[in-house]
Amino acid sequence: MPSPDKVNLAFAFATFSDHWSPRVAADLNGQQVKLVKFKGAFDWHHHDHEDELFLVHRGRFAMEFRDRSVELREGEFLVVPRGVEHRPVAEEEVEVILFEPASTLNTGNVRSVRTVDTPRRL
Amino acid sequence: MPSPDKVNLAFAFATFSDHWSPRVAADLNGQQVKLVKFKGAFDWHHHDHEDELFLVHRGRFAMEFRDRSVELREGEFLVVPRGVEHRPVAEEEVEVILFEPASTLNTGNVRSVRTVDTPRRL
Repeated sequence: MPSPDKVNLAFAFATFSDHWSPRVAADLNGQQVKLVKFKGAFDWHHHDHEDELFLVHRGRFAMEFRDRSVELREGEFLVVPRGVEHRPVAEEEVEVILFEPASTLNTGNVRSVRTVDTPRRL
Repeated sequence: MPSPDKVNLAFAFATFSDHWSPRVAADLNGQQVKLVKFKGAFDWHHHDHEDELFLVHRGRFAMEFRDRSVELREGEFLVVPRGVEHRPVAEEEVEVILFEPASTLNTGNVRSVRTVDTPRRL
């Protein structure tokens, strides 16, 4: 097996500009690393079977839960456990790294115009 | 289920100073996020069943493979596929985020004085 190549996050985020459309940056152990840009408020949803990690690369956003909101800034991460309703809200564009099972649908248990069934690869 | 707390990477890395001893920062989907500081050259090893992601938080290091070396800087990551021999080498201290299955042993198929059977939690 050939030795692998690296990914530079800043270069990778610069390759796309649309919001709410995750790009697959890596596959490992049935999980994926996805890069996504948020701007505005997403749909309330949960994932029945997947925990989801959000790590801020650049900018900030709020992860809203039904009982409170958590502000996430550059270099901060949060794991949303399966079953917990949430929605990200970003006043300004934010770059976010996701780590989650390859099966994870961005809108979880709901379908909306933002549902991405097959995320593009970088 | 209560909504989760965030982790600030800079604060988390500041809580320990030893090298080659990963700290578990989060659990999700049978995987773990670990934080580790490297300095010097590690042992050559591979993992039979686990792919391993290395993301540089601060500093730089070289991931050496048998056929070449890949320099990783802040904001760059690399996935080492299962079965591929590797060793990290850091001239200066570097802070690294790992994503890997919870079963992953830091020295893989070898045992050395640096083997950590049960990583501490943050």
